[in-house]
Amino acid sequence: MSRNEFSRRRFLRDGAVASAVAWTAPAALSAAARPSNADFLEVGLPKSELLTPALCVDLDALEANIDTMQSTVSANGIGVRPHTKTHKCPAIAKMQMARGAVGICTAKLTEVEVMFEHGLDKILLTTANVSPAKIRRAMILRKWCDGFTQAVDTEENARDLDAAAGEAGVIADIVVDVDPGGHRTGVPPGEPAVALAQLVDRLANLRLRGMLCYDGGAQHISGFAARRTQAIERMAPAAETFSRMRQSGLNVEIFSGGGTGTYNIDHETPGFTDVQGGSYVFLDAQYLAIGGEDDDNTYNDFEPSLTILTTVLNAQYEGRATTDAGAKSCTINQPWSIVIGETGMSYTSGSDEFGTIRYENPSRIYQTGDRLELIVSHCDPVVNLYDKMYATRKDRVEAVWQIAGRGKNQ
Amino acid sequence: MSRNEFSRRRFLRDGAVASAVAWTAPAALSAAARPSNADFLEVGLPKSELLTPALCVDLDALEANIDTMQSTVSANGIGVRPHTKTHKCPAIAKMQMARGAVGICTAKLTEVEVMFEHGLDKILLTTANVSPAKIRRAMILRKWCDGFTQAVDTEENARDLDAAAGEAGVIADIVVDVDPGGHRTGVPPGEPAVALAQLVDRLANLRLRGMLCYDGGAQHISGFAARRTQAIERMAPAAETFSRMRQSGLNVEIFSGGGTGTYNIDHETPGFTDVQGGSYVFLDAQYLAIGGEDDDNTYNDFEPSLTILTTVLNAQYEGRATTDAGAKSCTINQPWSIVIGETGMSYTSGSDEFGTIRYENPSRIYQTGDRLELIVSHCDPVVNLYDKMYATRKDRVEAVWQIAGRGKNQ
Repeated sequence: MSRNEFSRRRFLRDGAVASAVAWTAPAALSAAARPSNADFLEVGLPKSELLTPALCVDLDALEANIDTMQSTVSANGIGVRPHTKTHKCPAIAKMQMARGAVGICTAKLTEVEVMFEHGLDKILLTTANVSPAKIRRAMILRKWCDGFTQAVDTEENARDLDAAAGEAGVIADIVVDVDPGGHRTGVPPGEPAVALAQLVDRLANLRLRGMLCYDGGAQHISGFAARRTQAIERMAPAAETFSRMRQSGLNVEIFSGGGTGTYNIDHETPGFTDVQGGSYVFLDAQYLAIGGEDDDNTYNDFEPSLTILTTVLNAQYEGRATTDAGAKSCTINQPWSIVIGETGMSYTSGSDEFGTIRYENPSRIYQTGDRLELIVSHCDPVVNLYDKMYATRKDRVEAVWQIAGRGKNQ
Repeated sequence: MSRNEFSRRRFLRDGAVASAVAWTAPAALSAAARPSNADFLEVGLPKSELLTPALCVDLDALEANIDTMQSTVSANGIGVRPHTKTHKCPAIAKMQMARGAVGICTAKLTEVEVMFEHGLDKILLTTANVSPAKIRRAMILRKWCDGFTQAVDTEENARDLDAAAGEAGVIADIVVDVDPGGHRTGVPPGEPAVALAQLVDRLANLRLRGMLCYDGGAQHISGFAARRTQAIERMAPAAETFSRMRQSGLNVEIFSGGGTGTYNIDHETPGFTDVQGGSYVFLDAQYLAIGGEDDDNTYNDFEPSLTILTTVLNAQYEGRATTDAGAKSCTINQPWSIVIGETGMSYTSGSDEFGTIRYENPSRIYQTGDRLELIVSHCDPVVNLYDKMYATRKDRVEAVWQIAGRGKNQ
């Protein structure tokens, strides 16, 4: 089944349901269970009345994705610590926690601040803070947020954190970030990582909680078998490091890593405790292309839930149409966005302001004013373009969620 | 002179000045002249104390760029109507107006709303509104904003606008958007454009103001001579169209188009009235590469004023370093960002959260915690990632400007 057939089948099915069912207030979201990071002006509107470009998340698909992740990791004896760098949305983080996550991850300090401000309190910051100003802010945050843990990857940084924690009068929770071989962040596995963990353990104002090792490079390896083999192999030095930390008597309750591409593989790494999956809540064209355990062509473990609504602005030239969603609304990541329900056309967003449809053997031709819906190319940077996200069910807006972490990249 | 040498010379010179001069309150910005779209918390701080990634604009360079554009177009007998899609920042729009612009352009309706809300009132929306909701909003805005003019590119759209204007009780100012051959937006030049202008002229609730023709494809043609030849040639059908509109007695006071790459070429197109330049306020790596009239290698008509401050997070692996400014702070546009003042290294931002420096024959090696400054790759989508911009002079923050139009892509 090709990606377009996949998406067309799913969305045609949903469309048929939507048109047959009158919209009613959602029973599943009682006042207590409703995630609170919302405004209410557009609640109840059909998607067809939203100004475009608009970012939408389908709640049925989102909930199914969160449940799939949770049930899979639970069955595999590990946990999920969702990475909120993907959605930057406290409402979704709360849904993840309510469904069993052990905590959340963030990539940047300002994301921690936003998530804490919105009521999340078990937060693992996966990036080291190295500047004095950020270290100070991190320690002030730690005074208020007991569940805040941060990464460290050099001995110098551990000593800086210790000094700042002492100054702020806190004991800071720490995980050692171990490099999976990409040399992007992290200390080398083996002796350097163990020595760093021992230093953290010795420093008076730090408390060692364990380690993380995120192998970003493994997540998009195409084909499940190849991905599984490489992911496990590349995590072996980290597993050996974790084992040495444990054997040397260190407190290593956390061994966090992995992601959406390896969530059903990571439990095979000895000692591994929790998957830092992010993209699984939304999926996207990049992940659809990697293939899954059941289907070599389409990664169908999760459903694409995140879409962009766009409107055709110009249809007067042969073989093409222009829409209102370009690079500022879609990014220029590739594979490009996928037009839901259509075949024989491509969508590109190389222009800042405008999207371009090109027809080869199209299932339909769009006219000026027509609306279409896109599966996003790469969810993380797309979400980072929008201030709000329309949470919809059966094509009606059920909540308008602030993307409160948008632009919080410091 | 290569791009890196260019930027290094300029920024070394400025750095030397900065360290020699004590910071004093800026005499040039009296209370009356100071653009008001600002907050003040970080005013007076040195750039070195800002949390990174931080978006900065050098005021000396920005002011020089605005002056260069204004004096050039004035000398050529035309005007500038700056495109604010680039900066999305009312404070900069006000500087452009104060220095002689005939009005501003915006790409989206919500940008018009933001600019009007911040005190700008001569606004040309260069994109047609086609959905009923946007057309209604545009007409409501027109009730309050006398100087609001909008584009149209089909007869059906002209009739829709006329009906909505009638309903709102306004006369809407209109320009006809003419396609320069890219087939992205606009009506074909010649008879179709003239017929559309005549229809607008006839409709009771519309007032024809002229036409626009923006040739985006001409802006980045490499080499001044080639750019000049092609730009003029490609604008010839639009010029012929404009002439026919004028000859048929239509009110065509506006013939707007062009941009940063053709600002000193566009006056050669007969009838042309004003340049819609956007990027010239900032320049960027993409524009540096096109070459100018004086220098085939570097477009030095304007100075790069927009930079990203970033911090090195990891420097423990040979031949590379990792920073805190990745795709969410720099976009993935190419050419990649340029590290100011350095040679023999490249900067890429393909990872969402992290930038990567790779060394070949480096002028320096960065350590963890070191800060560096980048000339942005492509200014428009980069600005659209940030909520605020630090306006600096001699490396001190003189104003913190809201990018009030950020994310206003509807």
